[in-house]
Amino acid sequence: MKKANNVVIAQSGGPSMVINASLVGAVLAARSKIAGRRIGRIYGAVHGIEGILKGDYLDLRKVSEKMLRAIASTPSSALGSCRHKPNLEDCKRIFEEFRRKEVGYFFYIGGNDSADAARIVAEEAEKAGYPLVCFHIPKTIDNDLRSCDHTPGYGSAARFVACAIKGDDLDNRALGGVKIDVIMGCDAGFLAAASALARQRPDDGPHLIYLPETVFSEERFVRDVKSAMKKFGRCVIAVSEGIRGKDGIPIGAKLADGERDSHGNVQMSGTGALGDALARIIKAKCGIKRVRADTFGYLQRSFPGVVSQTDREEAFLAGAAAVQAALESGETKGTIGIVREDSKKYKVAYAVRPISDAAKETRSMPREFIASNGCDVTQAFIDYARPLVGELPDCAVF
Amino acid sequence: MKKANNVVIAQSGGPSMVINASLVGAVLAARSKIAGRRIGRIYGAVHGIEGILKGDYLDLRKVSEKMLRAIASTPSSALGSCRHKPNLEDCKRIFEEFRRKEVGYFFYIGGNDSADAARIVAEEAEKAGYPLVCFHIPKTIDNDLRSCDHTPGYGSAARFVACAIKGDDLDNRALGGVKIDVIMGCDAGFLAAASALARQRPDDGPHLIYLPETVFSEERFVRDVKSAMKKFGRCVIAVSEGIRGKDGIPIGAKLADGERDSHGNVQMSGTGALGDALARIIKAKCGIKRVRADTFGYLQRSFPGVVSQTDREEAFLAGAAAVQAALESGETKGTIGIVREDSKKYKVAYAVRPISDAAKETRSMPREFIASNGCDVTQAFIDYARPLVGELPDCAVF
Repeated sequence: MKKANNVVIAQSGGPSMVINASLVGAVLAARSKIAGRRIGRIYGAVHGIEGILKGDYLDLRKVSEKMLRAIASTPSSALGSCRHKPNLEDCKRIFEEFRRKEVGYFFYIGGNDSADAARIVAEEAEKAGYPLVCFHIPKTIDNDLRSCDHTPGYGSAARFVACAIKGDDLDNRALGGVKIDVIMGCDAGFLAAASALARQRPDDGPHLIYLPETVFSEERFVRDVKSAMKKFGRCVIAVSEGIRGKDGIPIGAKLADGERDSHGNVQMSGTGALGDALARIIKAKCGIKRVRADTFGYLQRSFPGVVSQTDREEAFLAGAAAVQAALESGETKGTIGIVREDSKKYKVAYAVRPISDAAKETRSMPREFIASNGCDVTQAFIDYARPLVGELPDCAVF
Repeated sequence: MKKANNVVIAQSGGPSMVINASLVGAVLAARSKIAGRRIGRIYGAVHGIEGILKGDYLDLRKVSEKMLRAIASTPSSALGSCRHKPNLEDCKRIFEEFRRKEVGYFFYIGGNDSADAARIVAEEAEKAGYPLVCFHIPKTIDNDLRSCDHTPGYGSAARFVACAIKGDDLDNRALGGVKIDVIMGCDAGFLAAASALARQRPDDGPHLIYLPETVFSEERFVRDVKSAMKKFGRCVIAVSEGIRGKDGIPIGAKLADGERDSHGNVQMSGTGALGDALARIIKAKCGIKRVRADTFGYLQRSFPGVVSQTDREEAFLAGAAAVQAALESGETKGTIGIVREDSKKYKVAYAVRPISDAAKETRSMPREFIASNGCDVTQAFIDYARPLVGELPDCAVF
């Protein structure tokens, strides 16, 4: 049997502003002169692994480069996504399908759960003796992959959060009171932390930032808000949806209806419950009349036009790097790590890493990024995040 | 006594993306050669009428034009805002203050409640024999002033809504299920209606649009969602926060805690309660697992960078027109109406209207803008709204 040289590529997990850039980066690399004849057909599986199981594909060799470039700058996952953890039976069916379609390369773009799905497929392929080169391409707005300095998707979502907080802080200046903004991030506070980038002036919000990495206490929260109100006469609060008390259980998960995906993740986004609960606490315990809560929700990962150029470019290059690694690294499986080569003059490189470095367990905000008062970030975080997000719109105040 | 020629200008009500453009339009007109010596000092009252009552002002003659231009392109109300309805005692104190500061001109930028506040001040000034020229400058993201074809602030908020729905629709394409987006607008559905501008393709969302102008029925809602799911395999729903049942009481107001401002408006924004309640209905009655709700909240009126250029320009010119009217129209009070002169080649004019045309009662979406099925808008609305919002980012799908 000749070496199967067709490609299956798919997207998985939550969409982002730039996951399509990774898809197109990989597809254009696979279609490039360098890849040459080593790659045959390029199948885009519709809705991730579910598309493979159903035999639902797009022929990505036939799509014009102009169309691909338009897809690359469109938010969300253009192939469709899924949250499906493949079991052994699925893997058996996947390899039958791959054999039939002469697939030798599989690229899976997504976060830690998608990396785990790719790991399962790669390991089961080895066990089954199916010759497959399998690469995971990193994506997550949560920025919580252990394999990357930062993850494609984060910079743009962080940009949305920073812009939103900037505008919302001006809104709060105009009418006063307390404003609570709930920001995505179940286990890692990187996205809520990005709210700090909104600050231009010493009295700009967010005045308080709560992360899943620190223990949230209602008493402490009430005290912090009273103190900020005293200092600023108003208070803008950035809260990660994953904040949790001493018991380690996210408060939002207790309030939500406990829906879980097949990887065991509890659904927390797409509901205003946490923000509303926190607003009720402030109204009841601080005697402040004007308390409002917004939950930024899915806009953080999908708002057209609000994108970090650096993030989009890196997402594209991470996709291309995966194809190059599949053809040239000699590895049969891996994930693309993003390494910051120079922190002063921002510069990154793309490295091949073991797929297990991205799979399952996520990383949290490191200790040195969290302020000692437990309700802010440090300058080290600002220095880390600023180049990922890019210049923000300048806002003037009298 | 010589004619008092100092100006007080202030902002009131909910902030918008372009209310600062109106402020700066008025201030630069008042500082221009044309106004010449007819205008003396220019006081910006901090937090609207409350600033006048406290004697809290900025000297807007002293602010550099560069700074004013930066303020003009910054969201929110740079002078601060309030929701204060002046009573007779307030008016008495206002005229004492105006007399002391030799104020002959008063400009108040805001929506219907702010127009009503300006009307009260103007009428009480006449009764008290205080020689005051008083003009209201229109602003509201709700687009519900009877005095305008459309209101400064609406185009930019509508742009945010259309962009957000565009991205969210792509997100829903990727993962499926039902997505509910709650959009501002207590009594008028113009802003929720703007979600329709997001559509590029026949199967693009929003698939259902619910407005305060039609009676919302839970049974009908469930039927609509089931039908859209059958047709599109997914469903994106734009819901105005002001939707109401047969009893005419907004459903969101029943769910919220009933906070009211001094004009008697119930607070509905800044809570996710309505979206969450609608999501529960769909989960329970449609047997659909993936149902999510986002409430766009304050981001709609404050997100830096998401602005309609047409809206910003018109807001600036409306401010300038008010100063011109105060100096040249011969009227001692009024509001600036925005008139669409030509609907084919979009063009507007600024007219002086009785202040009562803008005050108190608001307007709703006209019948011809609402589709006969009660859950969509008509082409007439699209034609009306498109030039106000401008070109939207193009999004590609396979």
